[in-house]
Amino acid sequence: MKVGSSLVEVKKATGVLEAYTEEKLRESLRRSGASLKLIDEVISTVRRRIYPEMPTAEIFKLSFKILKKRARHLAARYNLKRALLSLGPAGFPFEQFIARMFEKSGYQTSTNLFLAGKCVEHEVDISAINDTTTLLCECKFKNSQGMKVDLKTSLYVYARALDLNCVGRPDRDFILITNTGFTTEAIKYSKCMNLKIMGWSFPDGQSLRSQIEKHGMIPVTCLTGLKKSDFESLIREGYVDIEDFVKNRVPILKSRLGNRRIITALSEAERLLESLKV
Amino acid sequence: MKVGSSLVEVKKATGVLEAYTEEKLRESLRRSGASLKLIDEVISTVRRRIYPEMPTAEIFKLSFKILKKRARHLAARYNLKRALLSLGPAGFPFEQFIARMFEKSGYQTSTNLFLAGKCVEHEVDISAINDTTTLLCECKFKNSQGMKVDLKTSLYVYARALDLNCVGRPDRDFILITNTGFTTEAIKYSKCMNLKIMGWSFPDGQSLRSQIEKHGMIPVTCLTGLKKSDFESLIREGYVDIEDFVKNRVPILKSRLGNRRIITALSEAERLLESLKV
Repeated sequence: MKVGSSLVEVKKATGVLEAYTEEKLRESLRRSGASLKLIDEVISTVRRRIYPEMPTAEIFKLSFKILKKRARHLAARYNLKRALLSLGPAGFPFEQFIARMFEKSGYQTSTNLFLAGKCVEHEVDISAINDTTTLLCECKFKNSQGMKVDLKTSLYVYARALDLNCVGRPDRDFILITNTGFTTEAIKYSKCMNLKIMGWSFPDGQSLRSQIEKHGMIPVTCLTGLKKSDFESLIREGYVDIEDFVKNRVPILKSRLGNRRIITALSEAERLLESLKV
Repeated sequence: MKVGSSLVEVKKATGVLEAYTEEKLRESLRRSGASLKLIDEVISTVRRRIYPEMPTAEIFKLSFKILKKRARHLAARYNLKRALLSLGPAGFPFEQFIARMFEKSGYQTSTNLFLAGKCVEHEVDISAINDTTTLLCECKFKNSQGMKVDLKTSLYVYARALDLNCVGRPDRDFILITNTGFTTEAIKYSKCMNLKIMGWSFPDGQSLRSQIEKHGMIPVTCLTGLKKSDFESLIREGYVDIEDFVKNRVPILKSRLGNRRIITALSEAERLLESLKV
């Protein structure tokens, strides 16, 4: 078992085995903002504990535990992908989060619309409008990282875009967004038909992760130390991004959300936002 | 409660209430081939037993019981819609049954194909070919009468038909078939896009029921007196239509299918086929 030169295979959420590379772990730790020293500490701990076919979720958990002990706000950023999953089980908070992302890109958004197509009315998750473009968006929230958006979904979204007159027009476009990924066939079809799709790490440079990072967005579910019921209350009140959470500090503390855990979480959120500005 | 002039409402499988009309019951009994006298007997029994919001399934059960006592082979025909449901829970026997239906219309069929589209490969349930046309078919088997095929399905089937170059060509067409029905939106979209669809009673004159009746087809699950395990064995051996079942009398009796219940069922199937010829 040679870890440094990656002869150990680890098991991904999809069940697929993949060669373990320290480079990949290092990259994800670097993205969280951790120092080189801290990264090295995590890497060497994982090296000691790794075993053949270790689930990547377990490696993540181990790294997260160390980060959390050393720098709670970094742990929250490291946790981004899983925090998005925790926005579930319903898809609505994810839609709200994506709408906020469009707003940070200068769009005005509306959610849960019924729009008339050529043949029928369609339920559209988000409409995002700026000076030149109307972007309609279908959000597919998946509760597990192993669940990918499949060909059938790409097909029906394309037919819907066609009916809503969004095909081949620069001023009116349609995009399918998921918090996980797409099957190979779904990607192939979407590329071939020029259907815009965005997944956690797809397409390169314009992935959901890169967009979220670009706008410094962090879902409230990233915050450590909160209970499931706290998250549910925050989401119910419309706080899906920690920036909204921090901005509404005073009304939140005055409301029945203002318990001791929420006060601690507010400090964590503030440090987290500060760390993003560096 | 005035039954004759239909002031009683009954509850359909979808949960929707509908005025009870003896005319509708009379029509379904007539289709089973029952005599006028037998029809009158059923109608008057139902009239005595009906109550507000009685589930239509219960009315059916009551009628079926009387038919079964009087003329077992008529009961089997009366049971057609439910017999199709009993082909489940998996969709494959339904696909086989539909393929047989196309064969009786003079097509040569293949099932479970992978066909190359412009962008990707598609799994197609049935391809039916005659001298002039290739008809590709998507079968949607539903386990309950209340479950209808929705707009999303029509949309993805249309996009698939488009990718398989089946749109706007008289020699290559695509059809979506279900054993239940379609939502209003699915019908509206399909009409608007010229996508062929066929449900239990849709479209008028070309419905699945009328096609099945036209070709004198009866699924083996219509036969009374057989156990669930008998049906499973018959379907596993490829006997989905009673005509196939009767035609293969000798090999069936010689095989391990040939138990006492199957022998009784063979006589019922023969009488049933005879009654269709009248």
